Amino acid sequence: MSANPLVAGVGLHPFGRWPDLTAGDMVRKAAGDALAAANVPFSDVEMVFCGRVQTASGGGFEVISELGMTGVPIFTTDVACASSSAAFKQACMAILAGAADVTLVVGYERMRKGVIAINEGTYKEAIGAGLMPPRYALKARDYQTRYGASADAFAAVSVKAHRNGTLNPNAHHQKELTLEEVMGSRMIAEPLTLYQCCPTSDGAAALVVMSDSAARRYGSTTIRVLAAEMAAPSFADLQHNTETDADLHDATTTRVAQKAYEVAGVGPGDVGVTQLHDAFTSGELSRIEALGLCGEGEAADLTLRGETAINGRLPVNTDGGLLSRGHPLGATGAAQIAEIYLQLLGDAGPRQIAEPPLIGLCQNAGGGASMGVVVEIFSR
Amino acid sequence: MSANPLVAGVGLHPFGRWPDLTAGDMVRKAAGDALAAANVPFSDVEMVFCGRVQTASGGGFEVISELGMTGVPIFTTDVACASSSAAFKQACMAILAGAADVTLVVGYERMRKGVIAINEGTYKEAIGAGLMPPRYALKARDYQTRYGASADAFAAVSVKAHRNGTLNPNAHHQKELTLEEVMGSRMIAEPLTLYQCCPTSDGAAALVVMSDSAARRYGSTTIRVLAAEMAAPSFADLQHNTETDADLHDATTTRVAQKAYEVAGVGPGDVGVTQLHDAFTSGELSRIEALGLCGEGEAADLTLRGETAINGRLPVNTDGGLLSRGHPLGATGAAQIAEIYLQLLGDAGPRQIAEPPLIGLCQNAGGGASMGVVVEIFSR
Repeated sequence: MSANPLVAGVGLHPFGRWPDLTAGDMVRKAAGDALAAANVPFSDVEMVFCGRVQTASGGGFEVISELGMTGVPIFTTDVACASSSAAFKQACMAILAGAADVTLVVGYERMRKGVIAINEGTYKEAIGAGLMPPRYALKARDYQTRYGASADAFAAVSVKAHRNGTLNPNAHHQKELTLEEVMGSRMIAEPLTLYQCCPTSDGAAALVVMSDSAARRYGSTTIRVLAAEMAAPSFADLQHNTETDADLHDATTTRVAQKAYEVAGVGPGDVGVTQLHDAFTSGELSRIEALGLCGEGEAADLTLRGETAINGRLPVNTDGGLLSRGHPLGATGAAQIAEIYLQLLGDAGPRQIAEPPLIGLCQNAGGGASMGVVVEIFSR
Repeated sequence: MSANPLVAGVGLHPFGRWPDLTAGDMVRKAAGDALAAANVPFSDVEMVFCGRVQTASGGGFEVISELGMTGVPIFTTDVACASSSAAFKQACMAILAGAADVTLVVGYERMRKGVIAINEGTYKEAIGAGLMPPRYALKARDYQTRYGASADAFAAVSVKAHRNGTLNPNAHHQKELTLEEVMGSRMIAEPLTLYQCCPTSDGAAALVVMSDSAARRYGSTTIRVLAAEMAAPSFADLQHNTETDADLHDATTTRVAQKAYEVAGVGPGDVGVTQLHDAFTSGELSRIEALGLCGEGEAADLTLRGETAINGRLPVNTDGGLLSRGHPLGATGAAQIAEIYLQLLGDAGPRQIAEPPLIGLCQNAGGGASMGVVVEIFSR
């Protein structure tokens, strides 16, 4: 049995639209880079944990076998957008259980075009409430009503995300946008305009997760997993939400984050960099608050003041987040952890936080039929 | 951290055709029975691991939340027919990691009608090689060629399975068949007739998996997990197979079983009851051998001599197996473990082995895009 598991190497296949690539093509690149970064040959990996959603049933073996059919167990997990976050937690448990010393976590997705529907075949879908944009839009309206936030605050999240995206060679969108461009783009669901909705992207991300003894053996550069907590929404969580934002489960995020802080032995004030699920701009504001990084209703002003920018007081989604880096469902959770790894180690290149933080946090949420929220805390 | 995990209660929803039931309906029954058997209220379950294949993406939350939205993490795993076997291994790792003391494993499926195709959209599917019956039929032909086995031996597997099925109130088929009826049924893929192919069934199975301290707390009646080993086919495994039976990966089964025996500290001679993946009669013969329960080419005669019957020397698939109990993909692995639990504890009713065995073994295999073989060994 190991002390807390370690992340020992990360890799990404650029997020974007890659109609000519298979999931295997993208995973080869991401996993290959992660293994090279960790000084680990694939033949030494003892277990593989895959997260994916829309790709063919199972799929893990088909994709991972392209790296080499070494015969190790390959688990394929689906917790919607949080799939590779859940796969990461499983890898951590495997290390803690002593069942493996060296694991590979892979998230990947080749996305179907168009808006993602949940509650398929129900009245909610028929009236549009089964689609994500109106859900987040109602959430945004609720936020505005409660706290008097202007529409500017949502748009400012997108401006910041796209600025960060220009500094990330793996981002789907690498183009700066002005506040006027964001607010003037096509209205999708009042008050959310087109550039306040994440793109549907193809991509892959990979992480090598290992024990202390393995890290010594391979001489890998690591960050430590202080906590990897997961939960599904509880009935009590839902009571904190309006009917319209039940799927966004900010109350669940708060509950999971509190547990993660407790397990990690740190508080929100210690967090130096955060990656969170910003599929829509309104989500970033409510989740900054749900994580306790600021008080209720304060995220809007904080964003407008630039405090969530890369060298702000509270950097959020330094890689561009879902809005600009892109959102290949299964890959998102692993990509978030990859960014924390790079930021804590001072390896994030042009988007590096000037003073590399000691503590980083990820929040990811999966909706639909496989709801789950994961919060991870890491230290250098 | 616990010693080896324990299975502390099992439950099944009858396997069959249940067009009017949802997955949730079936899971409520199976999980409710397993929890009741273990003396554990659902509100005490700390993590849930679901296996399912053809049911909607994710699905775990939607189904499990019907038991009560307690907010615990719900992982949904897809390793094809071995999905709930993989979920069970994850539960064991969670216990060993100290991440949970009480977990629930659920397997369920509402099956699409018709033959299951793999290699969808490839030339293999177009020529019929992407379908399971011809794959197993070619395997059967190969077996006959190698060992001179008669077609009777395959049919005898089905006769035994259906006899056992009549003793299992949860079996899909509960009708005795003669050797003549099996051999005279419609030819599906020479030499495999209709009654040598498992039905596609709906159903659910559930297991409570816990630590020693939890078992003391709840006073549950338990069996011990001596080993739960999993592997994907390796390149070396495939070299042992012909092209046609690559997906049946008997070589992988042998490799995983050897590891499981080593971890469990027992040998094939200690195994008193076996559940294995007999989607087709030919699979039972080759897997009895792959598990080392008899020598190569000996399973045919052994079966014809009745040694795999309930009170034979080597009871196999005492609950009717996939052939008669049925095969709701995601539920099969958990149902296998449930049967071992009942047999080891002497609770298997009319199909109970007269002298309850001390050691039981399960083998399950998932094919297609999510290949994996799991072998578990249990002791009373």
